[in-house]
Amino acid sequence: MRKVVIGQAGGPTAVINATLAGVTEKLKETSSLIFMSKGYDGLCNGDFIEGNSEVVDWVLSHKNIPGACLGSGRYPMNEGEIFRCVQNLKKIRADTLVVIGGNGTMDALDKIQMAAEELKYELQVIGLPKTVDNDLGLTDHSPGFASAARYVAQSTLDMSRDLYAMRNFEQVRILETMGRNTGWLAAASGLFRDYEEDGPHFIAIPEKKLDKNELFEKIEHAVAQYGCAVVVTSEGVIWESEETVNRKIVQGRTVLGGVSTEIESAVQSNLGLTARSELLGMNQRSSLLYASKVDQREAYELGVEGGEWIAEGVTGVMTALQRTGGFRYNVDKIPVALKEVACHGERRMPSDFVSDLNAYYDWLKPLIGKDAISYPSPIPRREKNARG
Amino acid sequence: MRKVVIGQAGGPTAVINATLAGVTEKLKETSSLIFMSKGYDGLCNGDFIEGNSEVVDWVLSHKNIPGACLGSGRYPMNEGEIFRCVQNLKKIRADTLVVIGGNGTMDALDKIQMAAEELKYELQVIGLPKTVDNDLGLTDHSPGFASAARYVAQSTLDMSRDLYAMRNFEQVRILETMGRNTGWLAAASGLFRDYEEDGPHFIAIPEKKLDKNELFEKIEHAVAQYGCAVVVTSEGVIWESEETVNRKIVQGRTVLGGVSTEIESAVQSNLGLTARSELLGMNQRSSLLYASKVDQREAYELGVEGGEWIAEGVTGVMTALQRTGGFRYNVDKIPVALKEVACHGERRMPSDFVSDLNAYYDWLKPLIGKDAISYPSPIPRREKNARG
Repeated sequence: MRKVVIGQAGGPTAVINATLAGVTEKLKETSSLIFMSKGYDGLCNGDFIEGNSEVVDWVLSHKNIPGACLGSGRYPMNEGEIFRCVQNLKKIRADTLVVIGGNGTMDALDKIQMAAEELKYELQVIGLPKTVDNDLGLTDHSPGFASAARYVAQSTLDMSRDLYAMRNFEQVRILETMGRNTGWLAAASGLFRDYEEDGPHFIAIPEKKLDKNELFEKIEHAVAQYGCAVVVTSEGVIWESEETVNRKIVQGRTVLGGVSTEIESAVQSNLGLTARSELLGMNQRSSLLYASKVDQREAYELGVEGGEWIAEGVTGVMTALQRTGGFRYNVDKIPVALKEVACHGERRMPSDFVSDLNAYYDWLKPLIGKDAISYPSPIPRREKNARG
Repeated sequence: MRKVVIGQAGGPTAVINATLAGVTEKLKETSSLIFMSKGYDGLCNGDFIEGNSEVVDWVLSHKNIPGACLGSGRYPMNEGEIFRCVQNLKKIRADTLVVIGGNGTMDALDKIQMAAEELKYELQVIGLPKTVDNDLGLTDHSPGFASAARYVAQSTLDMSRDLYAMRNFEQVRILETMGRNTGWLAAASGLFRDYEEDGPHFIAIPEKKLDKNELFEKIEHAVAQYGCAVVVTSEGVIWESEETVNRKIVQGRTVLGGVSTEIESAVQSNLGLTARSELLGMNQRSSLLYASKVDQREAYELGVEGGEWIAEGVTGVMTALQRTGGFRYNVDKIPVALKEVACHGERRMPSDFVSDLNAYYDWLKPLIGKDAISYPSPIPRREKNARG
């Protein structure tokens, strides 16, 4: 019986447990399963959970639950850690290592496989994608992203209606989304926008430096036209003028979150408008109710697919999604080399999408599917008009 | 035909439009409807919307949409404004004024009625309750609260699972809820907590000054036991030691939000733990997906009830909810005098609930009803234990 070690790494998402359930369901009858506790931390330190039937049932019960039930986390993977991981896998005679994660995870998996090869230890390695930022390369998109995008889009619409109702009292709200290096999530904020009164009236993304004059112009225009303005910004946005954004450091990793308060101050002092900033927070990646059903399904299916490939002996790849060309949305699951994913690095929004958000929304819509919601006009006697 | 002026006031909620739809639906055939634009601002400045059939349909289309579709907002109501409101109502020959709002709204309605009486102008006045803070007196609870409570409870559970997965990386999260003077919302954070690993591990509410030592003890205990700790605090919490909490002022009104960052700093510097604070934000009052179905239904029904009372000539009261004593949850709609509501002031959590959260949760559960969600245990082989 093949001995398969399964883990979760990086920040949790609303659907990372669905991918875990998929691969577990596929392999539970034919393989001996071992789960890593707390991501690479558990792998480095030999902290494994025996996958007996009770544990397998417990894992499967988390299929639609947010978080990462095995434990995840960020663990620095230098050469020494990679070697310790391989040693620990060898010690328990693992045949296969499968980890659900993002760019760092795929890079680490690739290095683990190389280290195993050096030791003549035959180890099958499969990566399963996960990221709310959508910054994994060589896949159409990654599980976790659509649910987070839905959270951002729905929250922006709901908060737009809230601000619009309060426009005699406050004028500007600045919402800050996740997105360290990419604007996919912040740009998703306009997905459900059907009317000009609704936000976002300006979106700032890391792909484009933030021009204060353009920002002010858009805010002043919206306030003049509708009485209020909603700005959405990625946490990773940088001002065009070389001002630094204040950053906090937590355990050596920069915790973003600060650009929205800087926009708030700039708007107050330069435009004299009442402004309030808000970080959308952890619910972006952990909200159960905002999880996209398409995302949940794809996350699960990618897990199942990974399980099938394991049974077939495939190694050194990540399960990726590729759209088929048909009229209706459909995706194929294709293998992409871990090394290529690692080399590709963080995938930013293509310039086609940056310059034409409607093209981006056409691409994004099927990932939200029937969970998309249309609101009535915020003012009487008005047809949909915001998107052309 | 009776001429009825209808408005929304104060902060929006997920269900204030349901109450508006209820009263509008009830009166649309038998009365001439006029809507106030932007709450008391519109009433003071004569900014009315003619309730023709198109406008009525538009209002009804917002039944389950968050925000306040007529416009709401905070408007200072001193003696001059009260007088202007009455003059404007008289000018359009209004028979009835009905406003959906909280404590400030009920107080203003009472004053408007007294001012009308002084002028020998016969004006019928009805208040419909609305508050996310649940601080309206003389009613079992108010529409808006249950949806916000569900948001807080579900978010705390989701974020607990997120933090638990990341406990090798960060240990303490501090979530700050709405609640200027009352702890109803913050205390609701534990409603879905079935396991000790899940937060909240400590709840701070304005009804009880925050003791730093107790806070630290609870955090250290949780971190020792489970590897992490979730703290939930109302925005209106005050430290026991007379330290001031930093407050921002927006248009003369103190914007709370600050105590969680102070707890974050205190935890980091005193306990040396990795901590992160987060404001739960506007979604608490404006999230569509977290709206409680019981709350939506009660909000609508209170609007309908208000419409019935208007037809019956009732005046000077707010529609309140009173639990019937039966085995199953059920509420009667009863009238309470606006003057008494105004005199009652902000209603805090009773000491029975403060000292026994399980008693509070038994009271709260029916307001969430079937929207309550139970998660599997965060660790294998574990029965529910947190609330036993």
